[in-house]
Amino acid sequence: MLKSALLLIDVQKGFDSPLWGQRNNPEAESNITALLAEWRKHGAPIIHVKHCSVSSQLPLHPDQPGNAFKDEAAPISGEPEFTKSVNSAFIGTGLEDYLHENDLGSLVIVGLTTDHCVSTSTRMAGNLGFDVTLVSDATATFDRKDAGGEHISAEDMHRVNLASLNGEFCVVKTTNEILKAIN
Amino acid sequence: MLKSALLLIDVQKGFDSPLWGQRNNPEAESNITALLAEWRKHGAPIIHVKHCSVSSQLPLHPDQPGNAFKDEAAPISGEPEFTKSVNSAFIGTGLEDYLHENDLGSLVIVGLTTDHCVSTSTRMAGNLGFDVTLVSDATATFDRKDAGGEHISAEDMHRVNLASLNGEFCVVKTTNEILKAIN
Repeated sequence: MLKSALLLIDVQKGFDSPLWGQRNNPEAESNITALLAEWRKHGAPIIHVKHCSVSSQLPLHPDQPGNAFKDEAAPISGEPEFTKSVNSAFIGTGLEDYLHENDLGSLVIVGLTTDHCVSTSTRMAGNLGFDVTLVSDATATFDRKDAGGEHISAEDMHRVNLASLNGEFCVVKTTNEILKAIN
Repeated sequence: MLKSALLLIDVQKGFDSPLWGQRNNPEAESNITALLAEWRKHGAPIIHVKHCSVSSQLPLHPDQPGNAFKDEAAPISGEPEFTKSVNSAFIGTGLEDYLHENDLGSLVIVGLTTDHCVSTSTRMAGNLGFDVTLVSDATATFDRKDAGGEHISAEDMHRVNLASLNGEFCVVKTTNEILKAIN
């Protein structure tokens, strides 16, 4: 498991803005931190991805304070950082080349949000031939509306999107399953 | 609308196999056919994508009869066809180059399945800068299980996945909305 790169997607302060709606899984950050601590303890590969919104009004725009990584998941020296302006961590970034150059064929993906940037990056990683584990309780999303205007809770968005990904693009596991497999 | 290319994803016989589970939206094919007829009537651009599974046991493998396009959505002379072996129509194909070379900046996407190949292709199309309309009732998917083994109906898989895509990667419209906008 520790040969996999831990890929942290968009763990940024701007996701605390009320703009996004109601979120599920408030434990995502503590689970991300637990995995990050474990990877660091073993000197295993860690990669950070930061979203830079194009619109200056959005909380993740580089001029906004929300663009910053959350304190508990901020990169430390030697941990590479890739910036992107679309959902996929593989479009407009050097991530794919970096993974090949560093012989990293497998990824453990965590971060925000389940159905937008995490799902898109997981799909592309799987389709590009990487072996992907997605950590169900180290990601989270927001409530949305369906085409008829009906409310869908954040937990339902999360659960159904993970069901679409599992077995097709990745294997979905919990933080505890991963920590147990290591120790 | 007719300047957009109609992109048909994996409208293949193999999706009639019971292997995939219970499907929603049995009208997807008749809606696809209605859009296809309209695009052909106006000589508007049409592109077919065919999935070629790598495993010879799967219904969409090139050696299986299910690899064939459904009769009602099969390409006619002059309509380009791209083959793929992963979910995204943009990975391992010449589709992105073809769209740029033919000055096609917008797409109307239909086909199978909502949450696997259609969602992945829609996400990549949007992230690559194309303007995408996804036709909600001209796509369909199958029931799945969540991480806890709980059943999720095909209609719920479909509805929630469209909610994740709408407004972020594409605009979701119905077949009738598109036909009305044209006529």
